[in-house]
Amino acid sequence: MNSSIQQTIDELHTATRLLVGEGILDGFGHVSARHPDLPDRYFMLISNLGGPAPESRVLELDADSNPVRPGDARPSIERFIHGEVYRQRPDVLAIVHTHAPSLIPFGVCNVPLRPLYHMCGFLEDGPPVFDIRTKHGVTNMLVTTPEIGQSLASSLGARAMVLMRGHGATVVGTSLKEAVFRSVYATQNAQLLPTAMQLGQPTFLDSGEARLADELHHAVLRRPWEYWTKKHGLGLA
Amino acid sequence: MNSSIQQTIDELHTATRLLVGEGILDGFGHVSARHPDLPDRYFMLISNLGGPAPESRVLELDADSNPVRPGDARPSIERFIHGEVYRQRPDVLAIVHTHAPSLIPFGVCNVPLRPLYHMCGFLEDGPPVFDIRTKHGVTNMLVTTPEIGQSLASSLGARAMVLMRGHGATVVGTSLKEAVFRSVYATQNAQLLPTAMQLGQPTFLDSGEARLADELHHAVLRRPWEYWTKKHGLGLA
Amino acid sequence: MNSSIQQTIDELHTATRLLVGEGILDGFGHVSARHPDLPDRYFMLISNLGGPAPESRVLELDADSNPVRPGDARPSIERFIHGEVYRQRPDVLAIVHTHAPSLIPFGVCNVPLRPLYHMCGFLEDGPPVFDIRTKHGVTNMLVTTPEIGQSLASSLGARAMVLMRGHGATVVGTSLKEAVFRSVYATQNAQLLPTAMQLGQPTFLDSGEARLADELHHAVLRRPWEYWTKKHGLGLA
Amino acid sequence: MNSSIQQTIDELHTATRLLVGEGILDGFGHVSARHPDLPDRYFMLISNLGGPAPESRVLELDADSNPVRPGDARPSIERFIHGEVYRQRPDVLAIVHTHAPSLIPFGVCNVPLRPLYHMCGFLEDGPPVFDIRTKHGVTNMLVTTPEIGQSLASSLGARAMVLMRGHGATVVGTSLKEAVFRSVYATQNAQLLPTAMQLGQPTFLDSGEARLADELHHAVLRRPWEYWTKKHGLGLA
Repeated sequence: MNSSIQQTIDELHTATRLLVGEGILDGFGHVSARHPDLPDRYFMLISNLGGPAPESRVLELDADSNPVRPGDARPSIERFIHGEVYRQRPDVLAIVHTHAPSLIPFGVCNVPLRPLYHMCGFLEDGPPVFDIRTKHGVTNMLVTTPEIGQSLASSLGARAMVLMRGHGATVVGTSLKEAVFRSVYATQNAQLLPTAMQLGQPTFLDSGEARLADELHHAVLRRPWEYWTKKHGLGLA
Repeated sequence: MNSSIQQTIDELHTATRLLVGEGILDGFGHVSARHPDLPDRYFMLISNLGGPAPESRVLELDADSNPVRPGDARPSIERFIHGEVYRQRPDVLAIVHTHAPSLIPFGVCNVPLRPLYHMCGFLEDGPPVFDIRTKHGVTNMLVTTPEIGQSLASSLGARAMVLMRGHGATVVGTSLKEAVFRSVYATQNAQLLPTAMQLGQPTFLDSGEARLADELHHAVLRRPWEYWTKKHGLGLA
Repeated sequence: MNSSIQQTIDELHTATRLLVGEGILDGFGHVSARHPDLPDRYFMLISNLGGPAPESRVLELDADSNPVRPGDARPSIERFIHGEVYRQRPDVLAIVHTHAPSLIPFGVCNVPLRPLYHMCGFLEDGPPVFDIRTKHGVTNMLVTTPEIGQSLASSLGARAMVLMRGHGATVVGTSLKEAVFRSVYATQNAQLLPTAMQLGQPTFLDSGEARLADELHHAVLRRPWEYWTKKHGLGLA
Repeated sequence: MNSSIQQTIDELHTATRLLVGEGILDGFGHVSARHPDLPDRYFMLISNLGGPAPESRVLELDADSNPVRPGDARPSIERFIHGEVYRQRPDVLAIVHTHAPSLIPFGVCNVPLRPLYHMCGFLEDGPPVFDIRTKHGVTNMLVTTPEIGQSLASSLGARAMVLMRGHGATVVGTSLKEAVFRSVYATQNAQLLPTAMQLGQPTFLDSGEARLADELHHAVLRRPWEYWTKKHGLGLA
């Protein structure tokens, strides 16, 4: 295994632990990273905490979200979230799919999750909400087919995040560090917005402020990543 | 002791620790499991954390909620919750009785605890609320007699959960894993629903979505169970 | 030192750690216990966490809240809360004075902290609110004199708890176990009541239910005490 | 290095860890202390948790917020918050800049963060809100120039705290202990005020009570400092 692949896998393990530590993932939800050398492949873990030894928990999937090595463990039935977003968004190198509690109300109510502060410029004027029922009827709510994955990726469009009605959200980034950063602070913004709305009419970041703040954070992602790895007792990946 | 009994008891210890770790049980509340070989008996622990050594904390109770071995420790005065539900619901193999804080408001207000997301399909259109006063007058609110237990079981009916006015809730499953899963996510749904209601009129899972989501989770209960055991520092039962 | 005194002091240390662990005390607030043999004396600690070795942190105070041994550490300027309540309430054997966050809003708004569930029968129809300004004018809000302590004790009357406007609350019990129990669950009831009020008009415990539930808990205080000592990694006192 | 400098740096490390532990700082935000001997200089750390060994994380900055030793690590781009407040406020010896979640809504809504209780007398009738856009147009929201720092310091005026629209807050004190104390309790007051407002019209501390309570706490800052150092497993600085 070459070193860029190893580094990606190491970061994927670290990202998973950080997201568990920050309450973004629990037994469900997952994070993935695009293969650094073969851009039509990506890596996922088969569990977020526990399960077999770390090296046995890594799955490599192809463009159609099939495991590259047939003997590997069974992949998540929701892997099409990742595969279809990677296909439609060549700029995306990492994806977090989460059921983080504070995001759930924003997927089922008609209130845009707009950015209250500079950490969340990537929210722009509020992520779109993907409703699986619109195109796919009554389901178990999960993204269990390539077709549903494609619908989700279309809802996401060129954004950083898409909310999913009755389910959760999917957040993308140009690195694992960015996808983790956005997941944590989107969740925090969602915790704060109902309170701000109770207090009055919040002044959101305007579009210029949102764009400039997002650009800034793009450049300083190592700082929170190192903070969270230290906080959660991990070595730096 | 045969191995299926031992496994049930081991899982009961694990379930108790997970529910304590997730804030579903504290010094009060309890979880039970039906006897795997003698379906008119069930097991409970005499305390959720601490107390005597684990093997001395297990009680085996008969169909009338009397301890099978007279020398055993004093059983919970609320054991009739378990005994009478096991009697009326042959499909139920595990029961959680909880005072989880977020559930309390839903037992005292006229708002159904409907499912905001796929984790909670088992909530259907909202659990019934058992009001002890209706049939049993002014009490200390606890289920201290077989008769009150029977009333509670009747309120539960064929559901997965019943709220209890001024007291808490009782959640059932076809396994300890399912009863634990439902307890944790019902509690989370209850935390999120007031926020969603503040934001606007939430779109709940419709009945078909709820049913399909519950069926799906029935099949993947090992995943969150392994996550919580790892998170709370326990070996896998 | 005889054994009942030693046991009281040991329990006082344990109670302090439990209340810190449960978020009822932080650097401020304090708990006391009446002297088991000399009912016109009581014990307090000079700090809740840290400070000198445990045996040097115990203060014995007389009926006027003066340290019995002149060389002892400086007592809390708020010790009159304890001294004057012990004087007016011979039935009280332990007192918790807390700034627990969830109680603060109920001291400054005109909403009674009524009991949502059986754990809080002692709240009856809502504790009185002591406003220091009524009798003592503009102060630093603290109970720094015997006179203010007497006013507070009069507000408390025969109740289990008194809220203090812009300050916190004082909770009493017939044992440290009871005062700890009441402090923890009053705080939890205060966390839940605003949510219940948002959902609708809550059904509170009626007075008969409240009385019976409080009597019941009076008899089972060992159970939550053992739970909290285990949870917070302490030996049983 | 003389002992007062060493003590300041030790306290700065401790303050950082306490503020991380209390949720006031995460990967972002920072605390500083004025140089004890050269009042036109101040100390900051280059990271809140992790990063290089403690002694390599200390930066000394001059009156214009330039590092005194050119070879030192890159200072925060937001150091002008500190430098310009120290310039305009000779009484200030320590500064905390925070994005603490509960403060964010009060920076974007038109509700003064008034003191609900005696811990927060320093809030007076509510801190001013600095809106960077008023003078500096569309930015990335950060205080990246001396000019913006001067505007912020002017908004702060003679107060203990200034809120920053879409960003966070800056809190000052006459010691690290005071700046830490104020940061923690301002954040707690901000968590409680929305609840109090939901319950009704809160009675805030009046101006005399606020002033007297703040004076009192000024005299007892060692108490909470020792509590937090013990709680977060640190030695006493």
